[in-house]
Amino acid sequence: MSFDARASGVFVIAATPFHPDGRIDEASIDRLTDFYLACGANGLTALGVMGEAPKLAHDESIALVRRMVRRAGKVPVVVGVTSPGFAPMRALARGVMEAGAAGVMIAPPNTLRTDDQIVAYFGQAREAIGDDVPFAVQDYPLGFSVVMTPQVLARIVTENPSCVMLKLEDWPGLEKISAVRALEQAGRVRQVSILTGNGGIFLDFELERGANGAMTGYAFPDMLTELVRLSAAGERERAHDLFDAHLPLMRYEQQPGVGLAVRKLVLTKRGVLASDAQRSPATALSPAGRAEVDYLLRRLARLDSRANLG
Amino acid sequence: MSFDARASGVFVIAATPFHPDGRIDEASIDRLTDFYLACGANGLTALGVMGEAPKLAHDESIALVRRMVRRAGKVPVVVGVTSPGFAPMRALARGVMEAGAAGVMIAPPNTLRTDDQIVAYFGQAREAIGDDVPFAVQDYPLGFSVVMTPQVLARIVTENPSCVMLKLEDWPGLEKISAVRALEQAGRVRQVSILTGNGGIFLDFELERGANGAMTGYAFPDMLTELVRLSAAGERERAHDLFDAHLPLMRYEQQPGVGLAVRKLVLTKRGVLASDAQRSPATALSPAGRAEVDYLLRRLARLDSRANLG
Amino acid sequence: MSFDARASGVFVIAATPFHPDGRIDEASIDRLTDFYLACGANGLTALGVMGEAPKLAHDESIALVRRMVRRAGKVPVVVGVTSPGFAPMRALARGVMEAGAAGVMIAPPNTLRTDDQIVAYFGQAREAIGDDVPFAVQDYPLGFSVVMTPQVLARIVTENPSCVMLKLEDWPGLEKISAVRALEQAGRVRQVSILTGNGGIFLDFELERGANGAMTGYAFPDMLTELVRLSAAGERERAHDLFDAHLPLMRYEQQPGVGLAVRKLVLTKRGVLASDAQRSPATALSPAGRAEVDYLLRRLARLDSRANLG
Amino acid sequence: MSFDARASGVFVIAATPFHPDGRIDEASIDRLTDFYLACGANGLTALGVMGEAPKLAHDESIALVRRMVRRAGKVPVVVGVTSPGFAPMRALARGVMEAGAAGVMIAPPNTLRTDDQIVAYFGQAREAIGDDVPFAVQDYPLGFSVVMTPQVLARIVTENPSCVMLKLEDWPGLEKISAVRALEQAGRVRQVSILTGNGGIFLDFELERGANGAMTGYAFPDMLTELVRLSAAGERERAHDLFDAHLPLMRYEQQPGVGLAVRKLVLTKRGVLASDAQRSPATALSPAGRAEVDYLLRRLARLDSRANLG
Repeated sequence: MSFDARASGVFVIAATPFHPDGRIDEASIDRLTDFYLACGANGLTALGVMGEAPKLAHDESIALVRRMVRRAGKVPVVVGVTSPGFAPMRALARGVMEAGAAGVMIAPPNTLRTDDQIVAYFGQAREAIGDDVPFAVQDYPLGFSVVMTPQVLARIVTENPSCVMLKLEDWPGLEKISAVRALEQAGRVRQVSILTGNGGIFLDFELERGANGAMTGYAFPDMLTELVRLSAAGERERAHDLFDAHLPLMRYEQQPGVGLAVRKLVLTKRGVLASDAQRSPATALSPAGRAEVDYLLRRLARLDSRANLG
Repeated sequence: MSFDARASGVFVIAATPFHPDGRIDEASIDRLTDFYLACGANGLTALGVMGEAPKLAHDESIALVRRMVRRAGKVPVVVGVTSPGFAPMRALARGVMEAGAAGVMIAPPNTLRTDDQIVAYFGQAREAIGDDVPFAVQDYPLGFSVVMTPQVLARIVTENPSCVMLKLEDWPGLEKISAVRALEQAGRVRQVSILTGNGGIFLDFELERGANGAMTGYAFPDMLTELVRLSAAGERERAHDLFDAHLPLMRYEQQPGVGLAVRKLVLTKRGVLASDAQRSPATALSPAGRAEVDYLLRRLARLDSRANLG
Repeated sequence: MSFDARASGVFVIAATPFHPDGRIDEASIDRLTDFYLACGANGLTALGVMGEAPKLAHDESIALVRRMVRRAGKVPVVVGVTSPGFAPMRALARGVMEAGAAGVMIAPPNTLRTDDQIVAYFGQAREAIGDDVPFAVQDYPLGFSVVMTPQVLARIVTENPSCVMLKLEDWPGLEKISAVRALEQAGRVRQVSILTGNGGIFLDFELERGANGAMTGYAFPDMLTELVRLSAAGERERAHDLFDAHLPLMRYEQQPGVGLAVRKLVLTKRGVLASDAQRSPATALSPAGRAEVDYLLRRLARLDSRANLG
Repeated sequence: MSFDARASGVFVIAATPFHPDGRIDEASIDRLTDFYLACGANGLTALGVMGEAPKLAHDESIALVRRMVRRAGKVPVVVGVTSPGFAPMRALARGVMEAGAAGVMIAPPNTLRTDDQIVAYFGQAREAIGDDVPFAVQDYPLGFSVVMTPQVLARIVTENPSCVMLKLEDWPGLEKISAVRALEQAGRVRQVSILTGNGGIFLDFELERGANGAMTGYAFPDMLTELVRLSAAGERERAHDLFDAHLPLMRYEQQPGVGLAVRKLVLTKRGVLASDAQRSPATALSPAGRAEVDYLLRRLARLDSRANLG
């Protein structure tokens, strides 16, 4: 697998492991990377929205990517470089590419409004990072308040040859996948990879609509890769059975604010992270919330023998 | 059941039935009302966000409420009167109360920002509709971009004796339910009814956190009332089993824009509505979307014998 | 003058006069209308943003328009019918047209984002009010958070033959006027009337850029009509001298929230309104604010002998 | 003058000079600094909203501040460190303080909504930059969509001893100045410096309401310092005469997007900058816009002999 217009499967949004005192936990980076690979990840995404990127200093970001890239070997690492300015975006993009990243991901600033503003922005971003850096466009209106039509996405793809992937996490997004695929089939835009997000809570149908896979950080990436496999193999009922078993937890993890705490807690319970600590400022999970997660995990364990919770 | 601070159970957000040519389908109003009552609804909510309220002329709104109230008998009908101005809000509120409504529901305009602006707004709204009209506050930040803290909600309750209910559909909202209940238990605010929304996709835990029930329009209100019953009876596992069986469809119906089309389609398939028509402008469901709904219904029918789909 | 694509001059945004107890002051409607006509107004706009429209019940709105239309005689009255739903928009538009209005003005709801959403909205609005009702599009991004490019405005004009006017009050808006005029000259869109707003604080240059006049409610409409006359006559220096003399007060009146209080206070001081009362809820002017207005009026009186303050 | 709670006068928002090819123009930094000091500036603010901060790499920002600090001598240099994350904010704040800055300025991210979120944010920001770094809070709702009440500002001041200044540029903002001063006089919050922004277009009355001066980058800082002097000396009429002469240009420069182009053009015409180049991406001034600036400068030159335009 490489990070290009034919990329498919599961690119896991990697958590950033911290010690309880706020330092980056480097041993956990290695263990986490190994875990993702063992789950069958086709790629990793560092410094995504759920990677606590804004809490990392520039040098920490570079060091984290360098370590993850080395550990991941042939599995490509994509890095979020979304930034309020093109200068820091450029600095981060060049830095992580030197550190071995396969490409970057860019989300639009929430001040953009018109179609032309959005298209212009991605042209300027591509100039800032350089034509040689492959990038994914993150389409997440709920988080960024920027709405991109299929036509706008097509314009961005056409005007920027180094755009290789759309991370579609509009909500709802099923029709958008179909619309982009229809534009491709009509020859109105070259084909790029489409991965989906939103914590995976529509992945069952997204794959059926033509998505190439998912880019999300749900704490059971092993389920995500199995789901992609089943769906590609045409095993529809088994795919939905698997998906439905996980949906209660996926939905719970998809809560804004507290979702990252849930994800880190589950990764800790699964033995991957040494601690579920977030760097400050963080939204903590209440005791009631932790109990709810435990309850969901117990129900999941009964349903899904693959959920092996140490 | 009445619409007061002790209200509990399921207040169903009623769809507004239309003929394919856009006229209101009065026979379906009756059938829909009967259906909701047969499902065990404890109350009905007309002209909610999913009731296509902005597409109805004033007189149509009054007529719809009058018809629903008559049909519903002792079951209280609450009416959404959210409006950009206090004059139309007052006109609608007085009109529906004369038509027999039990109370009204008010959401804040998306221009409010500070805590004080929000509290002041609800005081002005109460003055506009009159002190004698019981009302629910709709707390739906995802839809309205207005964020109310538990303290702000408490101030609204305290300053407005006719506020009898909070419809909490923040996302995430579990901690908010706990926080409001904690303020009540600390004696810092009088107790009001808390019903939840968000299409029901967190109702399993919302009930456990202290919500009195749900106010949502999911097309299987029979499941919602059964869930409330099981949860109140302490049948936790059975409650979650039932909930989980419905979650894939609930999630699908919860999509903004297309969700109402899904809901009306399912109500039509269940024989309740004569047509799934929405009044223009409407977001239609694509053939692929309709097929996905059919697929979800087939899976649900296998899981839940209560889902009796003509 | 009529309300069509060749409309020009000053369409005054009419204040809505109230008695201190909140009732509409009908005698002041007549006096205000007479005053605007004596100032040389080419048209009137009722129920604009500064007309306290959301505080009026439907019947009050119709009655106000009927009275103003009768008094205005041949001078056209345009009416704001912006609404969260097409049903009340239609009801108001049909009602005011029956009452003698010359046309209506429509602003987009602040939930619109993409170019296509905006264009679709105005098509739906035109269908709602009827093809026979001439309308103006209000382009006020600062107030409505909807950004329309010149191309989007051109699409709206082209797709809706009954669109006769653009009220341009983007900020900044000078380049937008030039861009729309350039599209017209390139034959890419038919010519419509362009009036400007923003309280008039860029009217000096807007006229030079090709605007046909202003649609604003500055409390010295006599200055506005004189400015349009001077500018059309090529008396550039005199036009700017006049404008600059008023700019300190225009700027003061242009403050959101408190601006309407300033405007009503000045109209009261000029003997036009019997009271500067706003209907509740209102933002009042503090004693310090009132003193500042007095100070600005005294300075203006020295500069501009036309400012005849009873 | 130092950057503390007693700071007053004019803190000029410094432009960032670029060569036409995008490199920083270091000679112009020196000349610009000299010019600001010759105009009587009491302080300088680097990397403000109008300083093109997001286009500078971290090292460029530090170098610019170091150079400006050296040149400014005893005049304090405040630096904007607003950032989407606390890690880059901390890195920039520590870096510029080592480079000799007197303190920093922080604006809230546009995702904050509730009073408590805003107060918490500034506490976290203070922890990030360190308790030893004096800072100003920038209150600019029009730009940031975050509305802070006087009470919220008071809480921020009280909870953060290193908060020494409020940059108030709410719109309207006159009442807010009075409200904060009233809280101080009632002993409910310690006194801090209040400087105002908004391009200076309300500075005439802001000074009379109790502001200690202005923090803005209007291209005639010599006028701003003279205005502050006249106002402090009680020369009200002369202060307003001077202000009114500049208001047409100030208003023109205050246009979002194109305002920076106007400002740099005027500074170039005044011989301070070698070029009016902005680093890409930039909003350029059209030929019509440049001609309008020329016209305004000619009118100003006639009115104000102090406007000495190369």
